[in-house]
Amino acid sequence: MSTSGKQLFTTLESDGTLTVAIEDVTFPAPSGNQVLVKMEAAPINPSDLVILAGAADLENADYRNGKFVATVPEPFNTGSKARHGLKLPAGNEGAGTVVASGDSDLAKALVGQRVACVPGNAYSQYCIADAALCLPLGDYSAEDGASAFVNPMTALGFVENAKMDGQNAILHTVGASNLGQMLTRICTEDGIGLVNIVRKDSQVALLEKLGSTHVVNSSEDEFMGRLRSAIDDTGAFYGFDPIGGGQTVDTVFRAMEQVAIGKMTEYSRYGSSQQKRMFIYGRLDLGPTILSPGYGTAWTLSGWLLFPFLQSIGMENVDRMRQRVLKNLTTTFASSYKKRVNLEEMLTKEALTDYRAMRTGEKYLVTPWS
Amino acid sequence: MSTSGKQLFTTLESDGTLTVAIEDVTFPAPSGNQVLVKMEAAPINPSDLVILAGAADLENADYRNGKFVATVPEPFNTGSKARHGLKLPAGNEGAGTVVASGDSDLAKALVGQRVACVPGNAYSQYCIADAALCLPLGDYSAEDGASAFVNPMTALGFVENAKMDGQNAILHTVGASNLGQMLTRICTEDGIGLVNIVRKDSQVALLEKLGSTHVVNSSEDEFMGRLRSAIDDTGAFYGFDPIGGGQTVDTVFRAMEQVAIGKMTEYSRYGSSQQKRMFIYGRLDLGPTILSPGYGTAWTLSGWLLFPFLQSIGMENVDRMRQRVLKNLTTTFASSYKKRVNLEEMLTKEALTDYRAMRTGEKYLVTPWS
Repeated sequence: MSTSGKQLFTTLESDGTLTVAIEDVTFPAPSGNQVLVKMEAAPINPSDLVILAGAADLENADYRNGKFVATVPEPFNTGSKARHGLKLPAGNEGAGTVVASGDSDLAKALVGQRVACVPGNAYSQYCIADAALCLPLGDYSAEDGASAFVNPMTALGFVENAKMDGQNAILHTVGASNLGQMLTRICTEDGIGLVNIVRKDSQVALLEKLGSTHVVNSSEDEFMGRLRSAIDDTGAFYGFDPIGGGQTVDTVFRAMEQVAIGKMTEYSRYGSSQQKRMFIYGRLDLGPTILSPGYGTAWTLSGWLLFPFLQSIGMENVDRMRQRVLKNLTTTFASSYKKRVNLEEMLTKEALTDYRAMRTGEKYLVTPWS
Repeated sequence: MSTSGKQLFTTLESDGTLTVAIEDVTFPAPSGNQVLVKMEAAPINPSDLVILAGAADLENADYRNGKFVATVPEPFNTGSKARHGLKLPAGNEGAGTVVASGDSDLAKALVGQRVACVPGNAYSQYCIADAALCLPLGDYSAEDGASAFVNPMTALGFVENAKMDGQNAILHTVGASNLGQMLTRICTEDGIGLVNIVRKDSQVALLEKLGSTHVVNSSEDEFMGRLRSAIDDTGAFYGFDPIGGGQTVDTVFRAMEQVAIGKMTEYSRYGSSQQKRMFIYGRLDLGPTILSPGYGTAWTLSGWLLFPFLQSIGMENVDRMRQRVLKNLTTTFASSYKKRVNLEEMLTKEALTDYRAMRTGEKYLVTPWS
């Protein structure tokens, strides 16, 4: 028995032509530990956008019903060489109802249940998913559960990683994002200090309402001084940044070093011995990361990705984190959406241009049967 | 009893005026574990230049006998804010003869011996040094022992750090430097793979003569392809860079990632899972470090400094490393010098301009009694 439905595919050719289209496909019957999920809702996260649109020229693209063809400029096209010619699905996560299963007990037990899943092809009417990675949603709606994985586990992952590294404070460069709001709530619950950087007064108010005690607005003249004070107050020499390009990380390292230098009693040409640690976990800015020589030698910058982190901490810890997410799905880990679109609607110029801007609080939800 | 002699001091004022001068000073009698060393030779290392001249405008400086006054331009002056108004000694390391000691047995045992030491004010006729950090040189000359610490321990430190991190290959971005030559000999002795990047054909020949099997010349058209081959052959996803500014590290990360991507059987939008690790241990280029988004998320870049590293590995390991250096001081760990200058001569325009250029194989040695 097989099932038919619509699914999104994205293909980048070596000449930079990006084709994203909805196609009719046949889904195989699930086997073993697999389940077949009828998808009801899937968010468009920044990590999905990399593969969905990337740096493509959306202004001059060709839009038809359920399809667009655009050009990816250099150096981004060459930078994506590894995917040239590959026809790829998209959509990390989503939620839906299990309509069929393989013959393992774990898989069979999920039939009829609503689950959150991480199939990698969530922009689809059906997905094959691993039963072990499905999270039964109980009474939660598919919309409640659609974003149960990427943002919640990333925000929790930051706190877990910080605790593992002996830190009791974190800095986050995009405080008011959906993920940033979750991180604010988690840090409050766990008694972890948090410095939130935002760009607008309204975002300061939003985070203070959530209980954030150290919100600094990068648009203000007094930004550097306030950032230093917040770092000094909390002891946050450890932070996460989803912007990547430009000087955000550089600014944070400089502020951290200035705080550390202020506590030194003797000058050292090598700067402070205070270890400063930043992680880049996204690329909202595709430009290069600029690091100026101004914070000595005691600093480390890394990329950060959820899946390898989860692998590194083991299944028991991952399960503990997921149960925490499930228990608090509509409170601590709540997501909100600006708009719902079906598979065809998500490929219109209007929708693409709007969600690729990745503005704070303007996330889209794909509802493939609407 | 006290001793008089000449010593170099460097002072940077908040307006950017850098004054470096030789002064007559009185050295106190050593106490406890201290010894008084009559200095015979001290190298000018890149790490000394930071404090000695930094980014000062040497072309338009005022040079008088045993003194120069120059202007440090922005942003370097503000970047050195922590030292504004401080009168600092200079010279990390050197060698000389112990002429007096405190009353500890360790200190007393050194009287009359020639030692290598790390006093921090080695550009001086006398230094107070910690007996525990002095390395008795036996039959070696002061010139042989002058550079027994910084370069040898740094090169050995790279190999120790790599081994601690489970690596069996290293990449070095300045292969032909004095330190790079030591690293080449150490890696050969220890069976550690090594990728040496150089800029000239003559440097390729030099390193191949030392037994280096993977030397790549960044001036050649085929550089990137050869760098990838060398990384692939050796498995060097772990490296050290003293340049800091510009795109050296970026180029290395890109080459490492391309090698890793070439081994993947399935495309991932997040790049390879191959961990790539680079350390910046100097700032030959004072410009910003540029990191382009082209090597996924599995990368880490850190500053690296010798003293904190040695502290982290414990005294027993440090002693083992120092004994290895001593045993092979004129072979594996040999340094060579372009020129010898006394304290006054090292502050002439000709000398300063020459040694601040930090050209490969053109190190200066300060001989304060000549």
